[in-house]
Amino acid sequence: MTPQEGSQSNLKRETIQRFISAFIVAPFVVFCFVSYNSLVGLVAAIVMISAGELFFTTIKKYNTWLSFTYTAVVTTYPILYGIAFREHPLELLSIVYIVGIVIALSRVRNRDVITEIYFAYSTALIYIAFLLSFFIPLYDKFGPAVALLTLTIAWAYDSFAYAFGMVFGKHKFGSYYSPNKSWEGFFGGIFGTFMYIVLYQLIANAFFHSNMRLSFTLKVMIAILTGLLDTFGDIFESSIKRHYNVKHMGNLMPGHGGMLDRIDGLLFITPVVYIFLNMLYK
Amino acid sequence: MTPQEGSQSNLKRETIQRFISAFIVAPFVVFCFVSYNSLVGLVAAIVMISAGELFFTTIKKYNTWLSFTYTAVVTTYPILYGIAFREHPLELLSIVYIVGIVIALSRVRNRDVITEIYFAYSTALIYIAFLLSFFIPLYDKFGPAVALLTLTIAWAYDSFAYAFGMVFGKHKFGSYYSPNKSWEGFFGGIFGTFMYIVLYQLIANAFFHSNMRLSFTLKVMIAILTGLLDTFGDIFESSIKRHYNVKHMGNLMPGHGGMLDRIDGLLFITPVVYIFLNMLYK
Repeated sequence: MTPQEGSQSNLKRETIQRFISAFIVAPFVVFCFVSYNSLVGLVAAIVMISAGELFFTTIKKYNTWLSFTYTAVVTTYPILYGIAFREHPLELLSIVYIVGIVIALSRVRNRDVITEIYFAYSTALIYIAFLLSFFIPLYDKFGPAVALLTLTIAWAYDSFAYAFGMVFGKHKFGSYYSPNKSWEGFFGGIFGTFMYIVLYQLIANAFFHSNMRLSFTLKVMIAILTGLLDTFGDIFESSIKRHYNVKHMGNLMPGHGGMLDRIDGLLFITPVVYIFLNMLYK
Repeated sequence: MTPQEGSQSNLKRETIQRFISAFIVAPFVVFCFVSYNSLVGLVAAIVMISAGELFFTTIKKYNTWLSFTYTAVVTTYPILYGIAFREHPLELLSIVYIVGIVIALSRVRNRDVITEIYFAYSTALIYIAFLLSFFIPLYDKFGPAVALLTLTIAWAYDSFAYAFGMVFGKHKFGSYYSPNKSWEGFFGGIFGTFMYIVLYQLIANAFFHSNMRLSFTLKVMIAILTGLLDTFGDIFESSIKRHYNVKHMGNLMPGHGGMLDRIDGLLFITPVVYIFLNMLYK
């Protein structure tokens, strides 16, 4: 085998791994949408794994104890929000933030690394816990069909963008932090997402007594928003990985990298879809 | 003059400067509590100045344009929250956060400094804009007398802690980031804050038709909370200053340092007082 052939066969193996991993994990995730409480549990589990990955990539080298403690602190946000403080997320966020800062102040006596610890903590709290927890009001207000659609359009966009990019990708964005993204992948991803929304609505209404009536324009707009936000969310996460010189945040799902690599785009999509639907149906 | 006497006379001059600055600025600040809109303006102005100081201390050396832009982005939070989105602070926060991240991604192509930029941005958004904006619901729900009390207990604690610490301070906390804090200052500050609350309630009820009925226990609890939170808020800000090797974040008020040096404790006090009162009077 030439090196070229070797790298191509690696790529092929990675693609197959991606498929298999996805088909094993997806049903469990989808099943959690059956009730409000299991949805809260799912959000908390994803926040815990992703935040843990972020802390292990960024600050574990300074303080292992803090990485574990911060993972727990950040995970309290979706749990308490979902179970006890559905009406008071703002207050909850402020308290969790202050508690985390006080923990850092009392455990870390090193002025060289303290701001990096604040960076990791704030990013885990806002980017991961705060943004993903928009699934809680999304589910609460619009029901499981819309919440599951929000999750799966991120999957659909990722998959189509990946496939179109692999096959047709020639014109690169020129993104500094994520140089392999191509316009072909971007537009292919948006097109695929649109087709997916059409199919999803048909199936949800035909077989699951759902009552979704997203107009053509709305479907197009959601697909475009998904493409834009997924791309930015992904580049944001890539920029952190570049800083720390790692390829993946974790190694949870073979072919996908870590949990955070998997949900980076979703984190920007969820609040915006929620706000968008709220503006239309209030 | 011996060096000792020189440093004492410097300290004396700084104390006098503190007094004069405070007596010039305080009336303007207090006056803004006259109406809801002027309160929102005050919060926005304080956020703008403090966030600007933070960005100029931390990331201006990498990108001046970004420091100005981020100051503006962060300031939109209290303005839009106070004026247009009183019911939707959560959604507003998520959008402001995403906008700021996208701006960094499109303007900064340097993987060495990108996480430091995220640190500065998140800290300005959560620590300064998000936490200080609790004044808006505080004013809205509990009225001007309680909001002004929240602001001025932070002043009272700072002043009494400073005075008691100067005169009696012998036993230091041993705080790594803020080594000059003493237990005498801490307890003197709490005692002074308690006396201040007693006086404030008397005056507010006697002359301003207020109807405050804080019990003895409640006054003591608020004074203790103020002491704890002010101390942690102050050490948090000090830890950032230590990292950047600066004495003050700015030089707005002679004797006080910058705006952020002045409000560092208040930022932790405001949300907790709001939550505390909500738990008691709902």
